[in-house]
Amino acid sequence: MLTHPATKYRAFPPVNLPDRQWPSRTITAAPIWMSTDLRDGNQSLFEPMNAERKMRMFRTLCQVGFKEIEVAFPSASQTDFDFVRNLIEGGHIPDDVTIEVLTQSREHLIRRTMESLKGARRAIVHVYNATAPVFRDVVFGMSRGEVKELAVSSVRLIKELCAQAPETEWVLEYSPEVFTSTELDFALEVCNAVTAEWGATPANKVILNLPATVEVASPNVYADQIEWMHRNLARRDSVILSLHPHNDRGSGVAAAELGLMAGADRVEGCLFGNGERTGNVDVVTLALNMYTQGIAPGLDFSDINAVARTVEHCNQLPIHPRHPYVGDLVFTAFSGSHQDAIKKGFAAQQPNTLWNVPYMPIDPADLGRSYDSVIRVNSQSGKGGVAYLMEAEFGVVMPRRLQVEFSAEVQAHTDAHGGEMTAQNIWDLFDATYLNNPGAAVRYVEHHLFDHPGQTGKHVQGIRIGVEVNGQPMLLSGEGNGPIDAAVHALQGMGVKVQVRSYEERSTKASTDGGDAQACAFLELVSANGDTGKGGERFGVGMDTNIVTASIQALISGVNRLGLVRAGALETEVA
Amino acid sequence: MLTHPATKYRAFPPVNLPDRQWPSRTITAAPIWMSTDLRDGNQSLFEPMNAERKMRMFRTLCQVGFKEIEVAFPSASQTDFDFVRNLIEGGHIPDDVTIEVLTQSREHLIRRTMESLKGARRAIVHVYNATAPVFRDVVFGMSRGEVKELAVSSVRLIKELCAQAPETEWVLEYSPEVFTSTELDFALEVCNAVTAEWGATPANKVILNLPATVEVASPNVYADQIEWMHRNLARRDSVILSLHPHNDRGSGVAAAELGLMAGADRVEGCLFGNGERTGNVDVVTLALNMYTQGIAPGLDFSDINAVARTVEHCNQLPIHPRHPYVGDLVFTAFSGSHQDAIKKGFAAQQPNTLWNVPYMPIDPADLGRSYDSVIRVNSQSGKGGVAYLMEAEFGVVMPRRLQVEFSAEVQAHTDAHGGEMTAQNIWDLFDATYLNNPGAAVRYVEHHLFDHPGQTGKHVQGIRIGVEVNGQPMLLSGEGNGPIDAAVHALQGMGVKVQVRSYEERSTKASTDGGDAQACAFLELVSANGDTGKGGERFGVGMDTNIVTASIQALISGVNRLGLVRAGALETEVA
Repeated sequence: MLTHPATKYRAFPPVNLPDRQWPSRTITAAPIWMSTDLRDGNQSLFEPMNAERKMRMFRTLCQVGFKEIEVAFPSASQTDFDFVRNLIEGGHIPDDVTIEVLTQSREHLIRRTMESLKGARRAIVHVYNATAPVFRDVVFGMSRGEVKELAVSSVRLIKELCAQAPETEWVLEYSPEVFTSTELDFALEVCNAVTAEWGATPANKVILNLPATVEVASPNVYADQIEWMHRNLARRDSVILSLHPHNDRGSGVAAAELGLMAGADRVEGCLFGNGERTGNVDVVTLALNMYTQGIAPGLDFSDINAVARTVEHCNQLPIHPRHPYVGDLVFTAFSGSHQDAIKKGFAAQQPNTLWNVPYMPIDPADLGRSYDSVIRVNSQSGKGGVAYLMEAEFGVVMPRRLQVEFSAEVQAHTDAHGGEMTAQNIWDLFDATYLNNPGAAVRYVEHHLFDHPGQTGKHVQGIRIGVEVNGQPMLLSGEGNGPIDAAVHALQGMGVKVQVRSYEERSTKASTDGGDAQACAFLELVSANGDTGKGGERFGVGMDTNIVTASIQALISGVNRLGLVRAGALETEVA
Repeated sequence: MLTHPATKYRAFPPVNLPDRQWPSRTITAAPIWMSTDLRDGNQSLFEPMNAERKMRMFRTLCQVGFKEIEVAFPSASQTDFDFVRNLIEGGHIPDDVTIEVLTQSREHLIRRTMESLKGARRAIVHVYNATAPVFRDVVFGMSRGEVKELAVSSVRLIKELCAQAPETEWVLEYSPEVFTSTELDFALEVCNAVTAEWGATPANKVILNLPATVEVASPNVYADQIEWMHRNLARRDSVILSLHPHNDRGSGVAAAELGLMAGADRVEGCLFGNGERTGNVDVVTLALNMYTQGIAPGLDFSDINAVARTVEHCNQLPIHPRHPYVGDLVFTAFSGSHQDAIKKGFAAQQPNTLWNVPYMPIDPADLGRSYDSVIRVNSQSGKGGVAYLMEAEFGVVMPRRLQVEFSAEVQAHTDAHGGEMTAQNIWDLFDATYLNNPGAAVRYVEHHLFDHPGQTGKHVQGIRIGVEVNGQPMLLSGEGNGPIDAAVHALQGMGVKVQVRSYEERSTKASTDGGDAQACAFLELVSANGDTGKGGERFGVGMDTNIVTASIQALISGVNRLGLVRAGALETEVA
């Protein structure tokens, strides 16, 4: 980092707009929302969505209330192309929803893109090319004239191809890429040329999308840029002016809000701010910000936790605990004075009056959340919190499904005993639940592995396991293709039938320096005993420096969790 | 959620300030920064910091360059009180750093607070009371006059107590709580009364802090409120005007930036936006936003990852992968066209010129980060990351650091051979790199475990491993506290010394139905052979139905990856 960064960076030049109007304006109605979760969001994932996740995201977006959804970049991959075909041919698109696809300004990509949309009732073709100086000069080596001609010729081609498919109602969207870094006069020139080429009219508007592909200045500058375009665009009544803010400076939400005050009609973004790098603008926050100002946002987040779970599943990215409106911690008050004020505010709040509770800009009930339940969950037993403490304090990284299973135990414990749980309390509960349950029917004592020549010449693993069943020693033996398989077979000797659904084992983080680290094994078991036990699935956990010992202990822990051997039973068989 | 929320919420009333100046202003210098990580941040954690974490946070804040640090709410807990005493008595406060503490406006709390500061060289006493209508009406039942008198009498008491401890240089800070919801004229009246009571002069300024305790409107409204105060405050030259934005509407950064344009001198916030609910404003983002505009921020984030690790340790909260500047994904480009543009931008970037690389508002090197190292899993034009394909197609869930390591192999392969890699190509490369490298010097043949009585009565694991070294059979034996430890010792018989940094093993997802699933083991090894091998750290991978076999194979795979046995060497020793 440079102490005097002026040698390497410079202030973004301000827009000369002394008579700007937006600072005196207020947002009074929701914009047209466009979700790009399946395009900008998807293309920036560590693990792009598969077909199942794409469809789940699409359905959620429709349920939330989006009427415009950018569903793919069809020319970029077969997966994306196929998804568009599946949406259209499978009849998955609601009548009031319009799909949108993105394409670069290249002829073969445009043709491929148009092909993907065949048979759509209505579709938005979103074409872009780079207009910013660094792209013209460094990336593509094109003049202003060439850049403009590329935009115009692409629109001309799209118009021709649209005319060949009149069964679809076509809408054009154009984006000058990195609008924020493009000279305003040139952005205007290209946009106006696109409007003219498309032949936009008030009845057949063109969408001009002005992306902050990269956020390069404070949000008031973006608002100035938008107002300047708003005031100077040709055929303004034939244009839908659209925003596409990113969040590189952490101000995407503000940029969108000020941009709307500056005259924009439409906002593109993602749920909870997914998207390239720092993300697209978070449309959930935008919509709920409007909601708290008495504006119907047109998007429904009355069960925001359900939406959050779907998005986390589809994106495989977490939502931060302090994320506005949805984060685990945002309706939590840890400070006594805050808690007291909130309590008094709730008590004073009358039905059918304006919301007025201290520290709460929105009623959590409007989002399907609650102050009471969230404070309890978060001060002790939030899934993320428990998992985090287990990892940070004790080096135990739990499989995700075990996190869910164990959180329920934590919740039950706090419900029964009240009060807060410290990290040590949580560890004690984990220990008593999985590792050293004092009420467990079966206990691991020792095991021995031995080689067993198999029929086919394949090496077969034998095992002898010493256990105590309700205090009585018992010796079991079995064989299999590995120690776990052999142990599963050995357990059948006491009438216990289980299947291993998943196995994970790893060194605990607390001691990774040498070969003598503790290993922690997790076995997810399914009862194969019919309905004699509690049934279902349970995790077992074992810890030992020996990876085999840990996994056998985990197996027995899981058998106890499943309740397959009744505590106090089996004495006679054991004797 | 209400479809027509106007019945329950209303728009925040705009400030009447048609001649506002801030929209035409630009930030030209960094403000006074005040870190409240140890106060507002700490009080909103699941598990407030213990003494060790507090001290670690304090040292990091000093290293980063904060000159004002709110270290505690000493009257609220003994831990906080003791921490202040420890800082002062232990001589932990650098000469150029001033500590600050918060107190409510209550006599016994103020006395206790002042007691905590005894002997400090310089200290800021931060007193607040609630001025907003909902607090006056609902929480405390106080009139405007009573609220103002409470503020003034608290300042009077502080002034008296300060006079009794002249060895300390005293500074007063006052906050009208939920300034954003307080009528501007009343906030001004109270603030002016505080300034007068303290007797502030240009040489002995009072800090007036105007908190967005809750963010209740778009950031331009906060800027209007700040400019209005800035223009109307009495003795403005004797006042340091301070901002304290929260992030309930996701616009804390924008509120701070616009507030600075509106005339503020100082910003309070937390590293990476910790703090009550949605967090305080993120001072890291604010500082780096200034940095990208050529302004020296006065805070040093040239090793931002180290700061992030400390903050995660202290707060026990994660930093989101899309968090500006610091998130794992913010210098990552998954899209092929983005990658191409960035590559060209890097190539064109000349030393000692203005930074101008597409999609990169800052040079990652200025933060101690790198673009190359983060690009990771994306040789497929952004369609299907390597990690995703390995999991989805082959059921192999790689540890995160292995993803990075293997991606470099994929990248090298595509750079060398060009073109796209299919999932099968990637599997073949994985197989040839880790599982069945045809050029590997050491090959696993078989192993046998045996029990070995230890001296202390503790069970000791023995192992015999049959390997081939450059085609020649070799038998090794060792013992340890588990099979991996024993195998690590056995390898020393051929002069190979490694440490196991981490171990993970799990069933492959493709076959989780029964006990006979394949297990995949990952061992991260560190060479302990000095500089004889390639050195560094490498992963080894093994797959087998037997978890022990898989882990021994992984160990040998890692030894080969580390290059600790030269291919073609050791023939004589082996014979």
